Amino acid sequence: MIRFLTAGESHGKSLTAIIEGLPAGLKIDFAFINQELARRQIGYGRGPRMKLEKDTVEITAGVRYGKTLGSPVVLTVPNLDWPNWEKIMSVSLDPSGDYKRITRPRPGHADFAGSIKYHYDDIRNVLERSSARETTMRVAAGAVCKLFLKEFDINVSAKVLEIGGIKASDTNSGKKIEAKIDNAAKNGDSLGGIFEILVINAPIGLGTYVHWDRRLDGKLAQAVMSIPAIKGVEIGLGFEAGRRLGSDVHDEIFYKGRPGEGEYYRKTNNAGGLEGGMTNGETIIIKAVMKPIPTLKKPLSSVDMQTKKMVDAGYERSDVCAVQAASVIGEAMTAIVMTDTFMEKFGGDSMDEIKAGFSYFKKYVKKS
Amino acid sequence: MIRFLTAGESHGKSLTAIIEGLPAGLKIDFAFINQELARRQIGYGRGPRMKLEKDTVEITAGVRYGKTLGSPVVLTVPNLDWPNWEKIMSVSLDPSGDYKRITRPRPGHADFAGSIKYHYDDIRNVLERSSARETTMRVAAGAVCKLFLKEFDINVSAKVLEIGGIKASDTNSGKKIEAKIDNAAKNGDSLGGIFEILVINAPIGLGTYVHWDRRLDGKLAQAVMSIPAIKGVEIGLGFEAGRRLGSDVHDEIFYKGRPGEGEYYRKTNNAGGLEGGMTNGETIIIKAVMKPIPTLKKPLSSVDMQTKKMVDAGYERSDVCAVQAASVIGEAMTAIVMTDTFMEKFGGDSMDEIKAGFSYFKKYVKKS
Amino acid sequence: MIRFLTAGESHGKSLTAIIEGLPAGLKIDFAFINQELARRQIGYGRGPRMKLEKDTVEITAGVRYGKTLGSPVVLTVPNLDWPNWEKIMSVSLDPSGDYKRITRPRPGHADFAGSIKYHYDDIRNVLERSSARETTMRVAAGAVCKLFLKEFDINVSAKVLEIGGIKASDTNSGKKIEAKIDNAAKNGDSLGGIFEILVINAPIGLGTYVHWDRRLDGKLAQAVMSIPAIKGVEIGLGFEAGRRLGSDVHDEIFYKGRPGEGEYYRKTNNAGGLEGGMTNGETIIIKAVMKPIPTLKKPLSSVDMQTKKMVDAGYERSDVCAVQAASVIGEAMTAIVMTDTFMEKFGGDSMDEIKAGFSYFKKYVKKS
Amino acid sequence: MIRFLTAGESHGKSLTAIIEGLPAGLKIDFAFINQELARRQIGYGRGPRMKLEKDTVEITAGVRYGKTLGSPVVLTVPNLDWPNWEKIMSVSLDPSGDYKRITRPRPGHADFAGSIKYHYDDIRNVLERSSARETTMRVAAGAVCKLFLKEFDINVSAKVLEIGGIKASDTNSGKKIEAKIDNAAKNGDSLGGIFEILVINAPIGLGTYVHWDRRLDGKLAQAVMSIPAIKGVEIGLGFEAGRRLGSDVHDEIFYKGRPGEGEYYRKTNNAGGLEGGMTNGETIIIKAVMKPIPTLKKPLSSVDMQTKKMVDAGYERSDVCAVQAASVIGEAMTAIVMTDTFMEKFGGDSMDEIKAGFSYFKKYVKKS
Repeated sequence: MIRFLTAGESHGKSLTAIIEGLPAGLKIDFAFINQELARRQIGYGRGPRMKLEKDTVEITAGVRYGKTLGSPVVLTVPNLDWPNWEKIMSVSLDPSGDYKRITRPRPGHADFAGSIKYHYDDIRNVLERSSARETTMRVAAGAVCKLFLKEFDINVSAKVLEIGGIKASDTNSGKKIEAKIDNAAKNGDSLGGIFEILVINAPIGLGTYVHWDRRLDGKLAQAVMSIPAIKGVEIGLGFEAGRRLGSDVHDEIFYKGRPGEGEYYRKTNNAGGLEGGMTNGETIIIKAVMKPIPTLKKPLSSVDMQTKKMVDAGYERSDVCAVQAASVIGEAMTAIVMTDTFMEKFGGDSMDEIKAGFSYFKKYVKKS
Repeated sequence: MIRFLTAGESHGKSLTAIIEGLPAGLKIDFAFINQELARRQIGYGRGPRMKLEKDTVEITAGVRYGKTLGSPVVLTVPNLDWPNWEKIMSVSLDPSGDYKRITRPRPGHADFAGSIKYHYDDIRNVLERSSARETTMRVAAGAVCKLFLKEFDINVSAKVLEIGGIKASDTNSGKKIEAKIDNAAKNGDSLGGIFEILVINAPIGLGTYVHWDRRLDGKLAQAVMSIPAIKGVEIGLGFEAGRRLGSDVHDEIFYKGRPGEGEYYRKTNNAGGLEGGMTNGETIIIKAVMKPIPTLKKPLSSVDMQTKKMVDAGYERSDVCAVQAASVIGEAMTAIVMTDTFMEKFGGDSMDEIKAGFSYFKKYVKKS
Repeated sequence: MIRFLTAGESHGKSLTAIIEGLPAGLKIDFAFINQELARRQIGYGRGPRMKLEKDTVEITAGVRYGKTLGSPVVLTVPNLDWPNWEKIMSVSLDPSGDYKRITRPRPGHADFAGSIKYHYDDIRNVLERSSARETTMRVAAGAVCKLFLKEFDINVSAKVLEIGGIKASDTNSGKKIEAKIDNAAKNGDSLGGIFEILVINAPIGLGTYVHWDRRLDGKLAQAVMSIPAIKGVEIGLGFEAGRRLGSDVHDEIFYKGRPGEGEYYRKTNNAGGLEGGMTNGETIIIKAVMKPIPTLKKPLSSVDMQTKKMVDAGYERSDVCAVQAASVIGEAMTAIVMTDTFMEKFGGDSMDEIKAGFSYFKKYVKKS
Repeated sequence: MIRFLTAGESHGKSLTAIIEGLPAGLKIDFAFINQELARRQIGYGRGPRMKLEKDTVEITAGVRYGKTLGSPVVLTVPNLDWPNWEKIMSVSLDPSGDYKRITRPRPGHADFAGSIKYHYDDIRNVLERSSARETTMRVAAGAVCKLFLKEFDINVSAKVLEIGGIKASDTNSGKKIEAKIDNAAKNGDSLGGIFEILVINAPIGLGTYVHWDRRLDGKLAQAVMSIPAIKGVEIGLGFEAGRRLGSDVHDEIFYKGRPGEGEYYRKTNNAGGLEGGMTNGETIIIKAVMKPIPTLKKPLSSVDMQTKKMVDAGYERSDVCAVQAASVIGEAMTAIVMTDTFMEKFGGDSMDEIKAGFSYFKKYVKKS
């Protein structure tokens, strides 16, 4: 079982994750983790912060001589802008009650419900953690899980399908999308979109139908829906599946090669690689939608929570569109769930042991 | 924290659930639970089994004199058809190896991956548990959770939005849908559809943004996606949110009444009641899609897993369309998640204690 | 991961357990489970109930043709005395407020704190679940886990070491202990004692030091301490280890046979088979103490929780000494923890797959 | 629910913990946490490392202006000796295979089983995490939990009862114990002992009998037994309870004051504050034994895991006696469990909300 906790405020000193449950002997490619962090920071429509800060991970525990030790792994990403925030975000300072509070919640954000839930008079206490900055550590943890999956030839990738209604497959979509984003930026508005995550080469039989909370489709849905601003998740055909006949949805089963030496295959993959909550050997296909970023330069109407007067919503520096980044986070969450589910099936404390179990299973599947 | 385990094969002797973590003093309305079970069994397009068996729950632990005891609650639903299956599904009989096995997996079902995963030569060993019959106990457990939520005026309901592409809001939709189902039945085909779940009157601040796996949106997505045949989940605007501008998505915040005595409100609810993974006081809106039932009378192509020869997929008696039932299961899973998340916030061992905490919080929200 | 929930009131209709996470293909020996249940019911000093009711398990889910299906297993033990309790313990009856309540808590039992915690005016609502009758289902679940462990030649057993201060190793201990129990019975008093649990042949490396809650010593301590009336748990030398020099405690390591073909061994086992929270290949030795049963015929002083007047504590039919039974429950809890920890290391969905992984590991250890 | 993960190798760059689930608004007293860390480092018989390094915590997330934010809290303790270990414990360096490995396992330590479990040829990969240095972060996390408990007047403390068989209550015990330790040190040997943890003023009804894994006695036993070198845990009378008559063990119940205004009390506390797995309002009393430290200057016999030849066990700089430190860790683990169990009962997201619920419950208990 993989457990992980992440922590860190958007403008705090640093972000941290601990991953517990990784086997010993997994090679850690630091450059790869940093590359994944960089992928989270790019994309047309990102705000100035992404240009300022290039995230770099430091590992302070659980790894020695480039390989995991079986003990918990600590990943830390310092906030490079910390000197500018040291006072506002001080852990220990007593601001004597007279500091500037944020009291105008942004519609679409955690500001309103969060400050009621936690009994705050300063919305900064909410937004610092509810910020998408939090997802940095998901990407770092996801990168480690991707390294694990790669050892078994399992690959997780993602691509953007739509931005603000413009399909990436349309002619000249690149230009159209950039224009759409520029226009939104000019108007102080924001945009969302749709992306797709693929898991290639997962073995048959990860996840299970025997109990609802062990189904892989449900776990993936939680992991992806838990990304800030995600409002919908589909597997395979998704909502389209509800509009077709059964005979036009289910993926017929075929076999090629000599019995016991060949392999099963499908000509279609409407199920998106998951039947009965389990992998069926086909590519896992997940689609997700990201709503537009809720921080608008041309602010929406809101209410000052101190005075109850109508006001403009607050503004924190922000992006106009971050669907590209969300797709990278989607990969990370998917990689984490896949690793956990993989470990559940194959067990093992060292890479050698897991590889032996995996190889046994692959041979058995071949003969099935 | 609410924990629950369900068990039971489709044609086994009975189905069972244990719910652990309920407070003491919750009134159990047996008629209500049975009514929920009945709601799961109806709907145009259901197979003959639904007419044969009227599910009735028995409670054998955790309840005394009509109220919960704080101890684990056992719910059991006997399979009325058991005498006809006693031999085929015997727990103890040794069939001497020569019984009739099912070896032709149905595309779209757990049959194929399940029999590889668990190393079976008889697909019955898979389909008995992967059958949607399993959801009976989710509905029973969900009914108990609905009774809990009702004590706090929180209501969970659902309705069908579309069947096979026909919108329930269309003119003459009832007739059109029945005709569509009749036609599918005649052709040995099946249909899916889309339904919507609403949670009315949940307090502000259930769920949280502070850690990914405590977000209510993610938990609800897992719970709903884990229902057999569900291939997509949306919250609020869902996929449509990715196609609009931010200013056209986020729900502006208003206040009515005198400061500290009035209340916040919204004019729109595109967020579907969830911002930052938390309830914001608006109705929670979840949409889900069910793919067509994978058991077709006019069978799809498949492969005999014994001989590897191409064959017609197997057929077990089944429904043509079960979207109505799925919506009831969706209510149940939603009610379970809501109860768990509610208990996480309010704690408490008896209904009296929880009500005191809830009432304190409502007063505090009023003043916020 | 093995999850299990148990339920059932002492005089309710039946006791139930669901075990989730067992692999497919495990042979279920019904006679063995019943034999374990019988072992829980015997022992000198048991009350009349144990003679009345012979517990027999029924399995209603998760098993077919004598083998587990990978799906959750339901175990039920009916209470044979139910007809006499049907009214007092009715789940649905409304007793109209005027029934006889128990209001005099027994010192040493859950009565006092339980009725405050759950807001009860009738201690029966507590004692029905806090009764040691609850442990019946632990023994049933433990018996299933013993069957699992046996497939890997791992054996869990227990024996009584002391009753009321008389050592089972003393001369004529049998007679002395019976006399001690008879005497306690005559005086309306009760007795406890000490027992030992052994796990023979567990492989090296179950449990781990890498995170506190994955240490096997801690898990075993929780499992055994959670048995009603247990007030102390030791591993290996236990408290004696604190009184000796290090050189007189730690078990030196030896090797016999040719390098890579032989095996490591110890001449002593003061560690009780656990070093660094892991199995080290030696027999696991756990000792536990059971306090005397808190229900005394010659009652202790107590307070009527209705009137706050001093009264004699209540009396429910009970045993005088149940250490023998407690040792059987200790075996069961140990077997459950061992199975869970074993599954964590070896993973696997079917017995065949787990055996392949186990065999690989045994070979690897041989060469280590 | 409180979740926490700890990480860090003994000579790694730093130790880290993340605590998730703390409410908002808890005052963090940094000096108190550091003081607790210092208490873990003192005691007669500690090695030179304890004098070299004075642990100081840094908090980098989850706290602002001296109060918790409700978000996960990161605690870090740097290893001051890191510059001397930077190469040996490098996370990224490739040592080219020719570095000095440790191959002689210390009896009584994780060395032997750990290197087999994780497939290591260098015992350093085990001992760096299995070292008691790991407990630093338990103490840091425990200190935060103590701050929480103090807000409800609940106090956790510990004291040493015995060292190497000499009772702290004996005449001149201080001198005798120091002499015993000096003597062990001179002989290259080590000593263990027994300590006691008290929890004063816990409310009635924490923990529960309704399910085995929610019993507080079991949770405390796991938490304390999980401390390295602990081989036994007792609650209240402990093993002595098995040697007495029931009438001489159970704590009779009394009431003082006017009905509904007074309070229940006991004249004895043999149960150690826990009946039926729940707090009963009396002081919780836990005893634990620590075996002697397994690293001996005069080494025990062992086997070189490379050559299988008999050798002296390895030696890492170490303490002669650390019972005092273990008692501080015992306090910490107890405080963590108490906080978690407290939060389970009272729920709540902010200190204000929890205090309201606590105050309601205290009033209700008063009237019970």
